[in-house]
Amino acid sequence: MNLLLLSNSSSDAGYLVHAMPDIQELIESLPQGAPAVFVPYAGVTRNWDDYTALVASALADTGLDIQGLHSAQDPVAALEGAAVIIVGGGNTFNLLGHLRRQGLLDVVARRVRQGAAYLGWSAGSNLTCPSICTTNDMPITDPEGFDALGLLSFQINPHYTNAHPPGHRGETRAQRLAEFCTLNPAMPVLGLPEGAALRVRGDQVALVGPHDAPLFLGREEPRVFRPGPLEIPA
Amino acid sequence: MNLLLLSNSSSDAGYLVHAMPDIQELIESLPQGAPAVFVPYAGVTRNWDDYTALVASALADTGLDIQGLHSAQDPVAALEGAAVIIVGGGNTFNLLGHLRRQGLLDVVARRVRQGAAYLGWSAGSNLTCPSICTTNDMPITDPEGFDALGLLSFQINPHYTNAHPPGHRGETRAQRLAEFCTLNPAMPVLGLPEGAALRVRGDQVALVGPHDAPLFLGREEPRVFRPGPLEIPA
Repeated sequence: MNLLLLSNSSSDAGYLVHAMPDIQELIESLPQGAPAVFVPYAGVTRNWDDYTALVASALADTGLDIQGLHSAQDPVAALEGAAVIIVGGGNTFNLLGHLRRQGLLDVVARRVRQGAAYLGWSAGSNLTCPSICTTNDMPITDPEGFDALGLLSFQINPHYTNAHPPGHRGETRAQRLAEFCTLNPAMPVLGLPEGAALRVRGDQVALVGPHDAPLFLGREEPRVFRPGPLEIPA
Repeated sequence: MNLLLLSNSSSDAGYLVHAMPDIQELIESLPQGAPAVFVPYAGVTRNWDDYTALVASALADTGLDIQGLHSAQDPVAALEGAAVIIVGGGNTFNLLGHLRRQGLLDVVARRVRQGAAYLGWSAGSNLTCPSICTTNDMPITDPEGFDALGLLSFQINPHYTNAHPPGHRGETRAQRLAEFCTLNPAMPVLGLPEGAALRVRGDQVALVGPHDAPLFLGREEPRVFRPGPLEIPA
């Protein structure tokens, strides 16, 4: 497998700018004009055409030929022909629900296992996990099942932070993840901070970017990984 | 109907302390020792016996005879006999899943429509809505459907705030609710700030506490309600 999973799309530098060196490395073996499919279904308040145009513009320097999955006459054929599958952020429930109802989850998972490169951020990173049970998103629509692509053997929590608005009496992020780990004591969860990414080559996983990342498992104290190879397989 | 729906359970004053005058008013027509059932299923990292004991201790001055639903030999009979149903906060998905799998959602809804008082906070307030689609909680378990008690005709977003940790690139609360309103343009959502509550008598709803609360509907600018009677029916 060949995946790049970002926590976030935007930074002070602009849209996807902070990730461009890693994106270029992800696709370095591909020829100019390689076909890529962008999955915009996490977008709710943004129009899918606009979202696809935004991503195509941000990735113009890659030379990829990017098509929105929503505009493909035959979505299965588009995915079968794609050298790169790009899944954008937004609402994870909306993303998963659209792919499930169109019967495309298995197609995406198979294509990535066959070697198509996968670029995701936020909801698009969560989608590669066994389930979407560690998303931060609001459950605005029922995806009719929480199981996802299952390309990774562990969960990601994107936008990881334990900061908390002053005066807020709701749960902290660490408390939310402790709840998940209580119900799922054998499932690791990696907290992926803003600006961080995971790079998956085969079954090797590396933490990319300047930040450390905590791994939560059951009732254990979180293990903090430094950037570099992780000791957990994909 | 006779409901008191709190945003949060704890404040600097202690557990449920800020809400005691409103809780006393909710149950003022009941005799000393009236039977009450506490539903602890939103608790994930806390033991249900401990959670029930915490709530019983906090409500000792009410004179209610409080039993945990999890310890009832016949949960349906316990709910049928309860003058007050109390639903605590925690994880909304866990709460809804347990009630659905035990077939108790309809029993709770019917008892409240028949006149049993209902006291809820956080997840326990969300449960009275048409669905749990406006919870802030992490979807740590699939409740096998997002529809809830449907006692209210609108959605609540508890712990409402639009504050945002510095450096966070995820969605703001207003953005999350805008996503819900995009997919559900006819469903109002009331943002219930910390320290606020809704008091429902029959189909009359009032905002209780010192804070204003915004009502979101479709793409309209949010309407801000002052404490007092609301112009939306239960």
